[in-house]
Amino acid sequence: MATLHPFDEALRLEAAGSDRPDTWLGHSSPGYWNMVGPFGGTTAATALRAILLHPALLGEPVALTVNYAAAMAEGAFTVTARPARTNRSTQHWTVELSQDGDAGGAVMTATAVTAARRETWSQNDTPMPAVTLDDASGRLRFATSEWTNRYDMRAVRGIIPQVWDGSGVDSLTQLWVRDDPPRPLDFPALAALADVFYPRVWLRRATRVPAGTVSITTYFHADSRQLAECGKGFLLGQAKAQAFRNGFFDQAAQLWSEAGVLLATSTQLVYYKE
Amino acid sequence: MATLHPFDEALRLEAAGSDRPDTWLGHSSPGYWNMVGPFGGTTAATALRAILLHPALLGEPVALTVNYAAAMAEGAFTVTARPARTNRSTQHWTVELSQDGDAGGAVMTATAVTAARRETWSQNDTPMPAVTLDDASGRLRFATSEWTNRYDMRAVRGIIPQVWDGSGVDSLTQLWVRDDPPRPLDFPALAALADVFYPRVWLRRATRVPAGTVSITTYFHADSRQLAECGKGFLLGQAKAQAFRNGFFDQAAQLWSEAGVLLATSTQLVYYKE
Repeated sequence: MATLHPFDEALRLEAAGSDRPDTWLGHSSPGYWNMVGPFGGTTAATALRAILLHPALLGEPVALTVNYAAAMAEGAFTVTARPARTNRSTQHWTVELSQDGDAGGAVMTATAVTAARRETWSQNDTPMPAVTLDDASGRLRFATSEWTNRYDMRAVRGIIPQVWDGSGVDSLTQLWVRDDPPRPLDFPALAALADVFYPRVWLRRATRVPAGTVSITTYFHADSRQLAECGKGFLLGQAKAQAFRNGFFDQAAQLWSEAGVLLATSTQLVYYKE
Repeated sequence: MATLHPFDEALRLEAAGSDRPDTWLGHSSPGYWNMVGPFGGTTAATALRAILLHPALLGEPVALTVNYAAAMAEGAFTVTARPARTNRSTQHWTVELSQDGDAGGAVMTATAVTAARRETWSQNDTPMPAVTLDDASGRLRFATSEWTNRYDMRAVRGIIPQVWDGSGVDSLTQLWVRDDPPRPLDFPALAALADVFYPRVWLRRATRVPAGTVSITTYFHADSRQLAECGKGFLLGQAKAQAFRNGFFDQAAQLWSEAGVLLATSTQLVYYKE
């Protein structure tokens, strides 16, 4: 009997029924648990999966914004993906995730754009940094976060500080990453991979302060054919903050295939304390 | 009799009534007309203004994502801003704009995060490029776009190509910009200013092809006190694409005060043809 990959297990969604065609039911996954809720990457991937399952879907994802409104509790959730507008070659989506017994409102909101892409003049203006897998140090894990066992992350630069002594100088991390166990790349996996970078404030300050993503936006520059060409290979990811100010910082990220194709660019806003 | 600034005129919203507390009525503005609809910056600012007018508002904007689902027609519109979740120090918003007689669905969807910011360790890791207003060339306008008369834009680098001969080499524009007539900076103005950069594909290719923003995300690194300190002064804006691929490219932007404070970072996904 084939077993599901942990990522596919985490993303299992069941149709809520023919009277609620936009709604799916899911369950938080212990395999991707973070400190106070699931890894935000799987939550983003869940938003995208609800869209990809929708019978009215047009094209493939080009943009996804996910807002983390509250920590998801362990247990069941409901996710609704609604096409807000369908044009000739683009489609706009709104997504909301909620949990029974949570009277506070949405746990996650999202918007996305899908599109039927056409071949045009193309240009990668952000070449992959000239680093190889051999340049990477040992595997990056955080004992407090189960989800870090689901990714084989090997930092080339900007590994998590080994000593929390306030000695940080910049916020740039470059790392090789793939699912563990390896899994063929698709849009939900790429959406999750855009969120694997630990909070830039930890690196910048060499100080571990409470931090959590409030919003992430990912643009997909690759289509499904290009993702399929990546197979189960490593991607090179890079992330860096532009500014830290009074409780919030941004982190801008890029993800390249091992062959150097810029697959996605992403930016997120992160809350931090102190 | 005091006259409203054209930007405030464009952003006029009237409460739809006590039975629809989340809903406001507005009207497209000829002063900010673009080629096939209003300037996207004013549409983004309208989404934000509906949030800022809401009686349940908590804090100030920190993140805003606006999706342009369809070209807004000249005339009236309805905008709804709903708090999807209110936490102790953050609040999550969903916004939708529609027009009577448009059966296609939403014209614009948006999400935003507002927050009560606290003073923390802060760091600007993206210094303003070392350019002055004296380095700028003449004023940038496009005859086809009325909105470009509402901004005093002076390019330091990456002015719109003077000859469309396919000779482009990069996509970086740096420009000084402020409202015309000058107007004190606030969050809606900053949200609009994040969208003043003409399509990067025009610069990169020195070729004018059809292009239009499909989604823009802006992070506000400054609070209202810092915006007030900018007064009616110029901001320095910078924008650059990371990748152009099969009909879509991104443009990442930064906006600094004349004093060098990084006020906002922004990214957008733009559709293009050919």
